Amino acid sequence: MEFDTIAAISTPMGEGAIAIVRLSGDEAVGITDKLFRSPSGKTLAESASHTIHYGHLVDPETGKTAEEVMVSLMKAPKTYTREDVIEINCHGGLVSVNRVLELALRSGARLAEPGEFTKRAFLNGRIDLSQAEGVMDLIRSKTDRAMDVALGQMEGRLSRLIGELRQALIETLAQVEVNIDYPEYDDVEEMTLPVLIEKCTWVRSEIDGLIRTSGQGKILREGLSTAIIGRPNVGKSSLLNSLLQENKAIVTDIAGTTRDIIEEYVNVRGVPLKLVDTAGIRETEDIVERIGVERSRKVLKEADLILLVLNSSEELSEEDIRLFEAVRGMDVIVVANKTDLPRKLDIDEVRSRTGNAPVVTTSLLKDEGVDELEEAIASMFFEGRTGSQDMTYVSNARHVALLHQARRAVDDAISAAEAGVPVDMVQIDVTRAWEILGEIVGDTVQESLINELFSQFCLGK
Amino acid sequence: MEFDTIAAISTPMGEGAIAIVRLSGDEAVGITDKLFRSPSGKTLAESASHTIHYGHLVDPETGKTAEEVMVSLMKAPKTYTREDVIEINCHGGLVSVNRVLELALRSGARLAEPGEFTKRAFLNGRIDLSQAEGVMDLIRSKTDRAMDVALGQMEGRLSRLIGELRQALIETLAQVEVNIDYPEYDDVEEMTLPVLIEKCTWVRSEIDGLIRTSGQGKILREGLSTAIIGRPNVGKSSLLNSLLQENKAIVTDIAGTTRDIIEEYVNVRGVPLKLVDTAGIRETEDIVERIGVERSRKVLKEADLILLVLNSSEELSEEDIRLFEAVRGMDVIVVANKTDLPRKLDIDEVRSRTGNAPVVTTSLLKDEGVDELEEAIASMFFEGRTGSQDMTYVSNARHVALLHQARRAVDDAISAAEAGVPVDMVQIDVTRAWEILGEIVGDTVQESLINELFSQFCLGK
Repeated sequence: MEFDTIAAISTPMGEGAIAIVRLSGDEAVGITDKLFRSPSGKTLAESASHTIHYGHLVDPETGKTAEEVMVSLMKAPKTYTREDVIEINCHGGLVSVNRVLELALRSGARLAEPGEFTKRAFLNGRIDLSQAEGVMDLIRSKTDRAMDVALGQMEGRLSRLIGELRQALIETLAQVEVNIDYPEYDDVEEMTLPVLIEKCTWVRSEIDGLIRTSGQGKILREGLSTAIIGRPNVGKSSLLNSLLQENKAIVTDIAGTTRDIIEEYVNVRGVPLKLVDTAGIRETEDIVERIGVERSRKVLKEADLILLVLNSSEELSEEDIRLFEAVRGMDVIVVANKTDLPRKLDIDEVRSRTGNAPVVTTSLLKDEGVDELEEAIASMFFEGRTGSQDMTYVSNARHVALLHQARRAVDDAISAAEAGVPVDMVQIDVTRAWEILGEIVGDTVQESLINELFSQFCLGK
Repeated sequence: MEFDTIAAISTPMGEGAIAIVRLSGDEAVGITDKLFRSPSGKTLAESASHTIHYGHLVDPETGKTAEEVMVSLMKAPKTYTREDVIEINCHGGLVSVNRVLELALRSGARLAEPGEFTKRAFLNGRIDLSQAEGVMDLIRSKTDRAMDVALGQMEGRLSRLIGELRQALIETLAQVEVNIDYPEYDDVEEMTLPVLIEKCTWVRSEIDGLIRTSGQGKILREGLSTAIIGRPNVGKSSLLNSLLQENKAIVTDIAGTTRDIIEEYVNVRGVPLKLVDTAGIRETEDIVERIGVERSRKVLKEADLILLVLNSSEELSEEDIRLFEAVRGMDVIVVANKTDLPRKLDIDEVRSRTGNAPVVTTSLLKDEGVDELEEAIASMFFEGRTGSQDMTYVSNARHVALLHQARRAVDDAISAAEAGVPVDMVQIDVTRAWEILGEIVGDTVQESLINELFSQFCLGK
């Protein structure tokens, strides 16, 4: 495909040692050559691909030196976009990088839209849509494990799996076509339907397997919203501080848009815990007072995981029992704190009242039991999977929704086939499943959706 | 010189399209080769300098793919540090860039201190100290003009000037030595002193010239602290908004350290205006009520420029006159606003009461006069210099202090020589001046100072 030449700042905004302005397109080299002066006098057009050039940018209007730069020259097709790509490394700093970008724009480049470089990589066929989405997930990943999932997706792990399923469906369709085209055989239906049912059943079970990973995938991608609740003085603040101190806090600055939104994550064995209402816990030890208040309900409603803290040196109180009721049906881990004091709490009663929620005993005062709590969190959400680095997780809500749709289509095909519906009618369902799966990798997707997806990318990617 | 191999993240922290981990030192290539796998199987050690290589980083302990990267290979000596330099471009994102850095550190690199790459460029003789300081000024520059000054300094403009002055001083000293070594000539004093006085007088006047630029240099580098004051309802908020709207606001995020400190600058014809107490103006139209309050005094005290707003449709009030007194002796521009109404203000009286401060008439309501105000600001601080892009400004407080010291030493030498002090005594003052000027370029500077200077740099530079 042919596109105009785009340019954007590709490093995060802010003061830093190095900033990069990236260009992509047929004119990327020509535009940079209008600005770039190397000590040797050699132009970039004359230079070999994948080489680095020291020199200065000169404003063509004033003839003035604008910046000292290193230019990375990557000629098509072995580039990020499969087009000619130039990366101008300048001294980090807002004025410098804006000046370089402005020179590129004045010399004929167009300001890139968010995600437009990756969009071109997709439109030029270097990567498919799920791989492109993996790029963005990788950038936004909050733990190593989330990054591994994104990296796998970016490298095409999900694409290959989806490819296999689509291949199976298309082969089924081909088989049906052949049999329909040669209706001289009387036993078309009998020959075709069992094969169709068998193949579709396999596809359905594979889709089910993918859907099963989506809960974990979502957690890895977006973090596990975690609320800490409990009566006053049971140790909620201590628990919060233990989690924050023992684990690397991940503070994410949502690039570009709203600098104010800073979320607090902690990395618990690869699970990004997004601590909900930490401000609330810090402000006051008393969240119980506010139970029933709309805000507290909202906190509980948004949470994927509740850490319910009890005082193990006391018997269950009415307030504790009200909390159990408030969190009924949710994923709860009970933290029986203050084991440094004589135990009065009946753990079996706690279990029976919380639907067998795991109970971890801690003495936050003595720094005991936090490891066990972390283990409980990890195994609650990644039971038996902690070591399986090579697993394909579906983490993206769009993919999950499409998998559910594809599953229904396959399911319809199987039911119809089993009910003896004519094979060319069943074909429609199979074709639909094939198309829906194609949307995941971007084979059968509409332009408006593509535009929307890439607009959520960051600038310069 | 020989150093160990250092590594650091060289792009600003935050989510972005590209992040860079930079390595420098003898082992930079070897360390990266331990991690890097290119599709061709070729190592970086075998590759030509100044080339770019696509591939993956593999964790040597687990054999797992850690990230997809582009590696820029720059072998000594034509590099930023004059050592082997590797830049690993990875997908932007906190987890990704931290993982790449961690792999480099685990494979033998040491985490670089702030400014350590530039420090090596200095210690390895590629740039002098004032050039290194120019690098940091360039990154921190807030307007194009400030960047030009920093770029000039980085490219050695100040260094060359200081070099000429030191050359003149050393020649004088050589002359004195020669004359002292051949005392058979009776007229040593007579021959030497006039030459010494002449040369030193030239050096002194050049130093004076540099010192004269320092006020402007400081403003370009650090911004002009500007306070808007005036009675209630004269249009202070309107003026603030006009300045903010008509000019590109520069919001600086002090990287890494304190995310909370966000300063508000506007770029007025290349002069970075740092608006003081904008929050105060926005909160309330009434700063006069608070005149006399400690905070207001502090605001006025910190300001380099006062924009004093009057209502031109009213006669001078007692309050206006109290404001004139509060700003006596400061740089003031009077903004006579509301020219859309019939004028009652006596401009001559204003001038006489404000020590002939420039008066600009505006109708902020009709968007008139703001250009004239900006012109007045620019010419107040850069009178006659607006076009002189090639001028050398001294912008750095350390340089200014050293120039003053050097001036005193030269002055002492001249006075002594004129008083007929023996020439070998005068020599001491000249030598001192030569040494002090040497501190600017880092020729005669102590290690502790060097360490302190570079520690103020940003990480990865």
